[in-house]
Amino acid sequence: MIHKEDILKMETRYRANFINSLGGFKSVILIGTKSKLGQENLAIFNSLFHLGANPALCGIICRPDVSERHTLENIIETGIYTINHITSDFVEKAHHTAARYPRTVSEFEAAELQPEYINDIFAPFVKESIIKFSVELREKHFLEINGTTLLIGEIKDVIIPEDVIDSTGFVDIEKAGTITCSGLDSYHLTKKIVQLPYAKPKL
Amino acid sequence: MIHKEDILKMETRYRANFINSLGGFKSVILIGTKSKLGQENLAIFNSLFHLGANPALCGIICRPDVSERHTLENIIETGIYTINHITSDFVEKAHHTAARYPRTVSEFEAAELQPEYINDIFAPFVKESIIKFSVELREKHFLEINGTTLLIGEIKDVIIPEDVIDSTGFVDIEKAGTITCSGLDSYHLTKKIVQLPYAKPKL
Repeated sequence: MIHKEDILKMETRYRANFINSLGGFKSVILIGTKSKLGQENLAIFNSLFHLGANPALCGIICRPDVSERHTLENIIETGIYTINHITSDFVEKAHHTAARYPRTVSEFEAAELQPEYINDIFAPFVKESIIKFSVELREKHFLEINGTTLLIGEIKDVIIPEDVIDSTGFVDIEKAGTITCSGLDSYHLTKKIVQLPYAKPKL
Repeated sequence: MIHKEDILKMETRYRANFINSLGGFKSVILIGTKSKLGQENLAIFNSLFHLGANPALCGIICRPDVSERHTLENIIETGIYTINHITSDFVEKAHHTAARYPRTVSEFEAAELQPEYINDIFAPFVKESIIKFSVELREKHFLEINGTTLLIGEIKDVIIPEDVIDSTGFVDIEKAGTITCSGLDSYHLTKKIVQLPYAKPKL
């Protein structure tokens, strides 16, 4: 067994890898933003979580480090961001957006991904992404416990191929090629085991 | 494209399926708790997210509905819970813990999973689970926007086979058989595509 004291004694990078792996497989997506002055930004996040369906809300955690801070600043400045699923054909490019570029560099350019503007949505989407949606910032919570920021956003416009949505509303993201990640740098395809009916008491 | 207005018009269950799928693959784990009076509880959650490695923190979202509320009550009452990875051999049992049982019923019993007590940790683990850890409640945030509760906890004791931890601290949860989920009811195994080095600027 590994105890809290052992975790505290781990070398920083080792601990980051260990603790990041422990939580299980995660959603991994690209967040597209643009500053008021027009500077585009793109960053990979693995902290997206579902918060509620009505209203349609999702949360992300922004760490205080450079690459995520640019995203955070743009979201606070403009109130709008895009969330873009990642497929295996551009996973290396997506991962590269985590590199520490100055704010004046667009990670779209650095990672060779194409920004895509749809209708009058201010933030750029990732053209290569098959499932993507725009999000409007609703709440911001600073978490003093470790200096991270929780952003809660409402899902606005969803771009998605019709043939991956079934009659129950379920989106077959596996069919769409969406990948998942574990730890900080491991990317995975999926293979469905089972889809189960709504759980009802049997006792 | 699907707009916010379309989402608002969706039938409740259809919308729940749709919005729950959109966020990508998620961590899916069982949370074990026990009330002060000794009543055990077990519930499946798909909202676990990594919050930070130092201190080692994770977050979960508790919805106000019955099965998650029992977990929430026990965590607030006792300050301690366990997080247990799920493997394909007990996925049906794990899913069944989502059924709405009264608080006096143990979902361990209802789902035919075995509670396991380790050292002096108050909350029960799931014996069938290969990777599992205890968590101590650190913060509770009520999110007024939709009546959910964010619980932030610190990872304390980790039970894990040594051979799934590599020299960098990365835990090979795929090798350990940990599954992921999408939407509300779809469970998946994974297949690693690639593990990538720390991203550095190339411009």
